[in-house]
Amino acid sequence: MSIAKPVLDVLIRRPQAVPPVWFMRQAGRYLPEYRELRARAGSFLDLCFTPELAAEVTLQPIRRFGFDAAILFSDILVVPHALGRSVTFEAGEGPRLEPLDDVAKLNALATQADERVFAPVYEALGAVKAALPPNVALLGFCGAPWTVATYMVAGRGTPDQAPARILAYREPEGFARMIDILTETSSRYLVAQLKAGADAVQIFDTWAGVLPPAEFARWAVAPVRRIVENVRREIPDAKIIAFPRGAGASLGAYVDQVAVDAVSIDWTAEPSFVRARIQNRIAVQGNLDPLVLLAGGTALDRAVDDVIESYGKGPLIFNLGHGILPQTPIAHVEQTLRRIRGR
Amino acid sequence: MSIAKPVLDVLIRRPQAVPPVWFMRQAGRYLPEYRELRARAGSFLDLCFTPELAAEVTLQPIRRFGFDAAILFSDILVVPHALGRSVTFEAGEGPRLEPLDDVAKLNALATQADERVFAPVYEALGAVKAALPPNVALLGFCGAPWTVATYMVAGRGTPDQAPARILAYREPEGFARMIDILTETSSRYLVAQLKAGADAVQIFDTWAGVLPPAEFARWAVAPVRRIVENVRREIPDAKIIAFPRGAGASLGAYVDQVAVDAVSIDWTAEPSFVRARIQNRIAVQGNLDPLVLLAGGTALDRAVDDVIESYGKGPLIFNLGHGILPQTPIAHVEQTLRRIRGR
Repeated sequence: MSIAKPVLDVLIRRPQAVPPVWFMRQAGRYLPEYRELRARAGSFLDLCFTPELAAEVTLQPIRRFGFDAAILFSDILVVPHALGRSVTFEAGEGPRLEPLDDVAKLNALATQADERVFAPVYEALGAVKAALPPNVALLGFCGAPWTVATYMVAGRGTPDQAPARILAYREPEGFARMIDILTETSSRYLVAQLKAGADAVQIFDTWAGVLPPAEFARWAVAPVRRIVENVRREIPDAKIIAFPRGAGASLGAYVDQVAVDAVSIDWTAEPSFVRARIQNRIAVQGNLDPLVLLAGGTALDRAVDDVIESYGKGPLIFNLGHGILPQTPIAHVEQTLRRIRGR
Repeated sequence: MSIAKPVLDVLIRRPQAVPPVWFMRQAGRYLPEYRELRARAGSFLDLCFTPELAAEVTLQPIRRFGFDAAILFSDILVVPHALGRSVTFEAGEGPRLEPLDDVAKLNALATQADERVFAPVYEALGAVKAALPPNVALLGFCGAPWTVATYMVAGRGTPDQAPARILAYREPEGFARMIDILTETSSRYLVAQLKAGADAVQIFDTWAGVLPPAEFARWAVAPVRRIVENVRREIPDAKIIAFPRGAGASLGAYVDQVAVDAVSIDWTAEPSFVRARIQNRIAVQGNLDPLVLLAGGTALDRAVDDVIESYGKGPLIFNLGHGILPQTPIAHVEQTLRRIRGR
């Protein structure tokens, strides 16, 4: 007899009396056990590519908090790394890549990833799968092509990813070539993650929200739609969550065109719009403000209640509206879980 | 016989065959004549508070491009300056304020602005009014309380104005006191601008889009609604434009509650949503991506056409979705105006 995983129940549109919960970046710097292990590991990418360490870090928040999903500890920039781009992580500074900022560099980008780079990721998924409680879902992920491209072009995170937006305006063909390569690579990467044991995968489009409508359609909607089609060609019942952060009123058109099982919404989403245009058709994941989790107190309780009152009658996976912040107190995570589960 | 101002026609919901056009930050660093004058002036605030210089800078883009509106050259941070906060502008670094980052400082904030600080602003408006062609509208402005508060708390611009968001969660009463002071001060400031000659005023809420729904209602909607009510109590037919940048699907509820004559929309707005929820009732202003204006080329022509095709059948003031960037080539502004007016 198989034991139900509440996250997967929600993904087939079965609302739960108590919504299942996990947090984006739940494995990470806010956890002392993570910081302790991180100090012993080599580089950040060494941690991602050492299966036993990546698996251990993935499991830490499950042991501590009993989240309903474990998400593989890794980074969206392993894909450009596998495409031969230089990727490093400076402590406290975020990623640094060799910028891909003109059409010659765009046209020289490798079309094929070095698939061997991904092998430790699949091995880590297998190790986590074997260790997880049976009611906990295992999630794989990748970055959406647009978001990964923004880091590849700028070589780093910027407040509005202007370098990629300008390059896409000036060199749309070269930019489209890069997006196509990322789309095909990401499709194969997600298929392999699902075959390695992931119960579902999430596509992170952190920078979808900076695009005007025509560019949103071309660079955010179309590539993710193709990834979903590619994955479902190999695995017809693959469960897929998309997170087009900041999509606002464009979320409706997004869901019309991208056949995902759930949309993860950011903390600025408007509840009546989301219920009418999204949750009436598919599951919603989200959307506590990471800053109210950091702030704590009665504001946190009220914000948790708001999420549940806004979306709890439909299929809901409780999550943050963006990744948990490193300075977040453990006690606030505990308070949130009590508030959700004690209702 | 009075000569019509197309911008004011649009504000009373009369669509124009060729939409009137002006650009946010049209008086500024992308103009060589501005840089030349700026080099001769003292500090940035000296420039704002010297009526003949502020008027001259306001008029520069009208002379060069024949925009349909002139917007007073000033800054949203003159309000905290008048409330006794230290405000400076470092070259190329943006504003610096003495941070107002705890409840004691919030509670010590002056309730009354030093109204003498504003006198040169009103004088500049009068000087511009006297010099403007009769078909060009004169706009005054202020920052919305939330946006001004974010700079007062953090002491500077940040990628997501987290310091103010956290303080509002932790100290809602103290934060509300600051918002109330800004609301009343801004109301009086706009009334006086209208009496000094402004044909309409715009309320800039640059950081409205970072707020979750409950905070958006409390800190973005309610104060601007009160400003509009306060201004209309003094000047019943006052023309008011609001710019709640990044409001996304919350724009509908915003317009339901804030009785403005137009909403300025950012470059990420979704056209079918905006037409159905906003432009069916009031005028729309926007929303060319400032980065496509910077990029130029065929992408710029296509983006200009997109704005006009999306909104040109209804009442539309053509504008950018955010301020013009300092690196923007003059030729791209000229190309845009030809594209709009040559249709």
